[in-house]
Amino acid sequence: MCLLSFSPHSTTVMALSENAKVPPPYYAVIFVSQRTPGDNGYGDASARMVAMVKDQPGFIGMESARGADGKGITVAFFETEDAIREWGRVAEHRQVQTDGRATWYEHYEIYYSRVDRVRSWTKRVSD
Amino acid sequence: MCLLSFSPHSTTVMALSENAKVPPPYYAVIFVSQRTPGDNGYGDASARMVAMVKDQPGFIGMESARGADGKGITVAFFETEDAIREWGRVAEHRQVQTDGRATWYEHYEIYYSRVDRVRSWTKRVSD
Repeated sequence: MCLLSFSPHSTTVMALSENAKVPPPYYAVIFVSQRTPGDNGYGDASARMVAMVKDQPGFIGMESARGADGKGITVAFFETEDAIREWGRVAEHRQVQTDGRATWYEHYEIYYSRVDRVRSWTKRVSD
Repeated sequence: MCLLSFSPHSTTVMALSENAKVPPPYYAVIFVSQRTPGDNGYGDASARMVAMVKDQPGFIGMESARGADGKGITVAFFETEDAIREWGRVAEHRQVQTDGRATWYEHYEIYYSRVDRVRSWTKRVSD
């Protein structure tokens, strides 16, 4: 039973599997969050952040998934830790973080990590 | 529009935010996957793996989310890289990986990473 009202969605922006030009090591920001019910401007702000981060120097790509219960995970990949810090300093990004704590999230955890190895698999037509 | 048939779900097993006893650095396996339509035994196998990994030495916790479109992200946290390797050698786990490629997944990517820093935030009642 789902008591909340969400639009489950997922976003792939330049998935790393399509971007073999960037070998590890690189850096991943793992954002695990629980949304509050309702949209309340979240969709527009989220789309704006995705558009902005794509232009951020050192940004590689991101993956995102959110279930019908509002639990979501977004992983954003960057070439360097400096690139992550710079993105964290962008004024509009900081404002959205503030709005997120005020309105959109019940809780979140952010894991700053370094990716050392990647494996990828795709079903072949003959499988 | 959702052309596929899924049960969007998310799983939290001993979320790290509840487990302050494990300070970084530790290791994260980020599993990004696209499910094929239908369950086909996936739910049972997934529940079995969650139960098994909780008993694996060095396992810390995991987070998981999957959208209605079948795109999912699971992050499993381990104390050491050896613990990840040992979990990878478990026979039933290996069989489930084989089944996953044959039946449950269109594609997946696995990012092996080291977590160096964690931030966590929870809404206060007064917020």
